[in-house]
Amino acid sequence: MPDWFNQGEAIDQVSISDRGFQYGDGLFETIAIREGEPRLWRYHIDRLAKGCRVLGIKMPSESELYEGLCHALQRSDIATDRAGVKVIVSAGSGLRGYARPFVDSPTVLYHAFSAAPVAPDFYRSGIETVICATRLASGSATAGLKTLNRLEQVLARSELAGTDSFEGLTLDAEDNIICGTMSNVFFVNDKSVSTSPLDRCGVEGVMRRHVIETLDRQGIVVDIQACSLSRLADTDEVFLSNSQFGVIPVRACGETKWPVGQVTRNVMTIMASHQVPECRP
Amino acid sequence: MPDWFNQGEAIDQVSISDRGFQYGDGLFETIAIREGEPRLWRYHIDRLAKGCRVLGIKMPSESELYEGLCHALQRSDIATDRAGVKVIVSAGSGLRGYARPFVDSPTVLYHAFSAAPVAPDFYRSGIETVICATRLASGSATAGLKTLNRLEQVLARSELAGTDSFEGLTLDAEDNIICGTMSNVFFVNDKSVSTSPLDRCGVEGVMRRHVIETLDRQGIVVDIQACSLSRLADTDEVFLSNSQFGVIPVRACGETKWPVGQVTRNVMTIMASHQVPECRP
Repeated sequence: MPDWFNQGEAIDQVSISDRGFQYGDGLFETIAIREGEPRLWRYHIDRLAKGCRVLGIKMPSESELYEGLCHALQRSDIATDRAGVKVIVSAGSGLRGYARPFVDSPTVLYHAFSAAPVAPDFYRSGIETVICATRLASGSATAGLKTLNRLEQVLARSELAGTDSFEGLTLDAEDNIICGTMSNVFFVNDKSVSTSPLDRCGVEGVMRRHVIETLDRQGIVVDIQACSLSRLADTDEVFLSNSQFGVIPVRACGETKWPVGQVTRNVMTIMASHQVPECRP
Repeated sequence: MPDWFNQGEAIDQVSISDRGFQYGDGLFETIAIREGEPRLWRYHIDRLAKGCRVLGIKMPSESELYEGLCHALQRSDIATDRAGVKVIVSAGSGLRGYARPFVDSPTVLYHAFSAAPVAPDFYRSGIETVICATRLASGSATAGLKTLNRLEQVLARSELAGTDSFEGLTLDAEDNIICGTMSNVFFVNDKSVSTSPLDRCGVEGVMRRHVIETLDRQGIVVDIQACSLSRLADTDEVFLSNSQFGVIPVRACGETKWPVGQVTRNVMTIMASHQVPECRP
């Protein structure tokens, strides 16, 4: 079974001189497929377009991306009721050296994969997390974007090997909790929901945006506000968002424990009615 | 002419699933070749070994690396009196997702290239620089290392297109001058030499280390001390170091101009007698 597709052709290699390999000069999206259709497609397109603007890469047309995604799904012979497609947009092969002009013809690659659901108990009882020793650098020119420069996440996520933790939370140098290695984090205090600002580091998840905008339409304002590590134990509830699993309660971070609280359950109920049925509590 | 070599074989592609491509999960060194031999080999090995420790990758043996470098030079049919070899050590093909175990068998790739000298006038009269708008993120888990996560340098260096600037200087969020996009920066004040600390961002260049250690043996201590942008105009002299060009005076940064000063000339004279003959002033 072919793994990756480029312009309709199955491929399994890229040029060594591809700037994605040489410098991590590119972007990606990992798109959840539900009932054969990409979920939160608009938000993936928006983030990719923003990344292309910052990196100086021509954004592939939405129709090209949609066709590429559907083609990869069809050719990959997997069940599309629940799957995922990873799309990579790299700056392509270019001259040696860091400098490059605007990229008119990026390399666009598609990979479809089966996506097993997370354990139902995670939605009911919450998951365990830890604080990662790996910190996120602050003041990044690509903060919020999903670029191919992901060493921080590789190092942070690799810390979890051999532990019971489902996710690791990463801090900046000032002990602010920024996000999970593959998720965004929300905090509940006195019934108010907040999530960390991502203008200096971290990745702006599409599910984070979906939660913020969906709650806003319900009259629930999510504050964009840093939560320092020292305040974590005093937080009433914590939950995570991710494009694949939706919303999941956090029941522990190291020694700090939380119940699955009423606000988190309410958020999950709302999200379950808005394209994320798997998180119905 | 083959471009890249892996285990003695000429190749021009890598697996799309190589973690170097997916996440920038790897390291590289660009080694100057002079009279057929790698210059500052020991320092390149040291930095690569440190990077392998931080990333959790088995460091290839020094003899393997040396043989690979020589092989790439021989096969590439270029003049080796003055050349370069780029070595990439990537975490190789692995599971999808950020987490990975320690990498026992990294992918090691070699690329030899001809290296034209920079204009002699640059050594005599200095070069022009600018301050890049792209800032370096601070507090990086891979500060100092030469990883495959190089988007900051790509963005900063690309700012120079169409300008007369030979190099761009990059700042952190606190307006400290950290390094050039492909060089390290030294400052001279009242005959004292200093260079920026690189424990929170930037790349620790092998030529920077060579300058610091060579001057130290001459009784000249280089202070590791930040230079803020606001102090740049009051600095007596500025020079850059890089593994390929050695040491070059800076004659301008934007509107700020400097003469090629006596201390810089003295440093260049010393370095010219210590493996860097091209920078004899």
